[in-house]
Amino acid sequence: MTDKTVLPGVLIASGNWAPEPWAAPFGREPERPLAIWPDVPDRAAIHYVLAWRPPAEAFADLPNLKAVFSLGAGVDHVVGNTALPDVPIVRVVDLDLTTRMTEWVTLQVLLHHRQHLAYARQQAARQWRELRQPVAHDVRVGIMGLGELGRDAAEVLARLGFQVAGWSRSAKDIAGIECFHGEDGLTAFLGRTDILVALVPLTPDTRGILNASVFDRLARDGALGGPVLINAGRGGLQVDADILAALDDGRLIGASLDVFEPEPLAADSPFWGHPRVVVTPHVAASSEASVLAVGIHRQILDFEAGKPLGNLVDVTRGY
Amino acid sequence: MTDKTVLPGVLIASGNWAPEPWAAPFGREPERPLAIWPDVPDRAAIHYVLAWRPPAEAFADLPNLKAVFSLGAGVDHVVGNTALPDVPIVRVVDLDLTTRMTEWVTLQVLLHHRQHLAYARQQAARQWRELRQPVAHDVRVGIMGLGELGRDAAEVLARLGFQVAGWSRSAKDIAGIECFHGEDGLTAFLGRTDILVALVPLTPDTRGILNASVFDRLARDGALGGPVLINAGRGGLQVDADILAALDDGRLIGASLDVFEPEPLAADSPFWGHPRVVVTPHVAASSEASVLAVGIHRQILDFEAGKPLGNLVDVTRGY
Ligand SMILES: NC(=O)c1ccc[n+]([C@@H]2O[C@H](COP(=O)([O-])OP(=O)(O)OC[C@H]3O[C@@H](n4cnc5c(N)ncnc54)[C@H](OP(=O)(O)O)[C@@H]3O)[C@@H](O)[C@H]2O)c1
Ligand SMILES: NC(=O)c1ccc[n+]([C@@H]2O[C@H](COP(=O)([O-])OP(=O)(O)OC[C@H]3O[C@@H](n4cnc5c(N)ncnc54)[C@H](OP(=O)(O)O)[C@@H]3O)[C@@H](O)[C@H]2O)c1
Repeated sequence: MTDKTVLPGVLIASGNWAPEPWAAPFGREPERPLAIWPDVPDRAAIHYVLAWRPPAEAFADLPNLKAVFSLGAGVDHVVGNTALPDVPIVRVVDLDLTTRMTEWVTLQVLLHHRQHLAYARQQAARQWRELRQPVAHDVRVGIMGLGELGRDAAEVLARLGFQVAGWSRSAKDIAGIECFHGEDGLTAFLGRTDILVALVPLTPDTRGILNASVFDRLARDGALGGPVLINAGRGGLQVDADILAALDDGRLIGASLDVFEPEPLAADSPFWGHPRVVVTPHVAASSEASVLAVGIHRQILDFEAGKPLGNLVDVTRGY
Repeated sequence: MTDKTVLPGVLIASGNWAPEPWAAPFGREPERPLAIWPDVPDRAAIHYVLAWRPPAEAFADLPNLKAVFSLGAGVDHVVGNTALPDVPIVRVVDLDLTTRMTEWVTLQVLLHHRQHLAYARQQAARQWRELRQPVAHDVRVGIMGLGELGRDAAEVLARLGFQVAGWSRSAKDIAGIECFHGEDGLTAFLGRTDILVALVPLTPDTRGILNASVFDRLARDGALGGPVLINAGRGGLQVDADILAALDDGRLIGASLDVFEPEPLAADSPFWGHPRVVVTPHVAASSEASVLAVGIHRQILDFEAGKPLGNLVDVTRGY
């Protein structure tokens, strides 16, 4: 710390999110200057920016900036910022968030696997009829993205009995999970996948990756009768028209989508009313701000005590 | 084996189920007499009965009977049989069946936990709205029955982050699961339970156990805003009127029911149309007969090779 009585200051630039819960742990430190964008009385006091969809101007004129903290796991909202300063960018990695994402992914995989939408229609029609049902051991799940979130979901799905594979940028070796990587590994990964789960970040490399060329390469001979798409990454991964066309002609038999571009999803989007699509309003892993804020505050105290920052983003790679 | 050329014979008494897949592995042994009830040419040849809801007469006059194999995990359909002979009763314990049950239970727990029914209604109304959502760590699941099926579901739900407890007849010690047992343990078990999952067998002790007195003792202060009932045991565990009354006055906020008495569920049952009830047509763990038949055939070959029979039922206890 550079000063005995004044702590390094914090600026919260949280776009469309309420700043109060993010401010709470810092507000309890009387010596710490705390600003809420756009009201920044003393720019030189700011050492950290806590950012969610920050406006470019939020980063201007901060001579003592030490680090930027993304208020979510994804950083596409900040790495594209034209005024991003050359300081460490830290993202959220939190057990609460990972737990929630694995809940959502597991629910959606089981919902399609166990034909919940068809059973719900039968229930509405008061129809008692058993549907042909494969067991998890005969169904292949493929997770795009084997990071914090993808790995945890993969582990739980493997425990449930599914044949699980994953795909990442760099090579991996994970017990019980068949690992593929890179452009070269994509076709083999898709060819053995009945349920595709997207948990990759949105980067220039992954924008629009959920497209017809990928759906064309998914397994056709699977026990479910066709492939299913589940996306909890970012809406920008999706080519909406390709998903709808694939659902129409059977290259996809179902989908669960939590993310869209833009959000909220337009009221006239065909996804809302599609009988084989589950839409959730970007809630897959919405940790409470008050929980994540405590983690960010802890990281800042650790950093001020001399420990290195963790969960760093590689800005050139985009995640 | 008592004879060099003729193997001990098998009688299949499979009530309302097609006998063919159960007969298949035995049909491949030319030396093994195989009868399908009610057509039993040589009663003395029968050493084993494979039974599902067998008529009492199926057991009459079988002087060489060695064992009865229940074609399902539950044995309520056979232990109540007035003509049940005094031979070992073997039930199905099979990874395929356990996997399917854990899929169904996990799906139903997550479906209520993640407010799927409310989100589905919002989707139908094209409404983009986030609901307050607790994380699994703040939700307590209670599994009634810590047998083959209950234990596996408990393990997976604990891995997902839920606080899991179980209740059984005898005391248990299972890592990561809070264990209660007996009448004395029931009130404490219910008092810490937000999502109650019934996986007990139907016996004289458990008939009607899912009743108002049990719902009254469930946790009221839980993170979900009220308790949820999930039953994949047997319909006879349920007091339907008590479930409906509890759903009406908020002592239950949701239910998933796979089993009913009688089945199929009557077309005029209020469960079908209830907005907070998920009905499935006794499909939670429907292994294919051809898969389970291979396991029963294997057990019979092992028994004939001198190994003891496993998965024995205690008829006086009822499971
Ligand atoms: N819907 C929601 O509520 C919600 C909530 C939180 C997060 N998210 C989304 O989930 C994403 C994943 O989060 P995370 O914490 O798991 O991220 P992470 O730890 O950074 O993992 C990202 C994974 O994607 C892989 N990847 C990145 N670019 C790739 C490419 N071009 N080709 C192949 N693989 C690629 C990475 O490969 P390497 O391992 O080789 O680097 C890594 O395995 C976030 O970026 C965010 O968009 C959504
Ligand atoms: N819906 C479906 O598709 C489907 C499919 C298969 C099975 N089932 C049902 O699932 C049930 C459970 O199967 P399972 O293989 O797990 O049976 P299991 O291995 O025999 O386990 C039964 C469990 O229930 C407990 N229990 C029995 N009576 C009790 C009582 N009076 N009080 C407290 N606990 C009691 C037992 O306690 P102890 O451990 O102390 O003995 C045991 O933990 C079957 O009986 C069947 O009815 C349904």
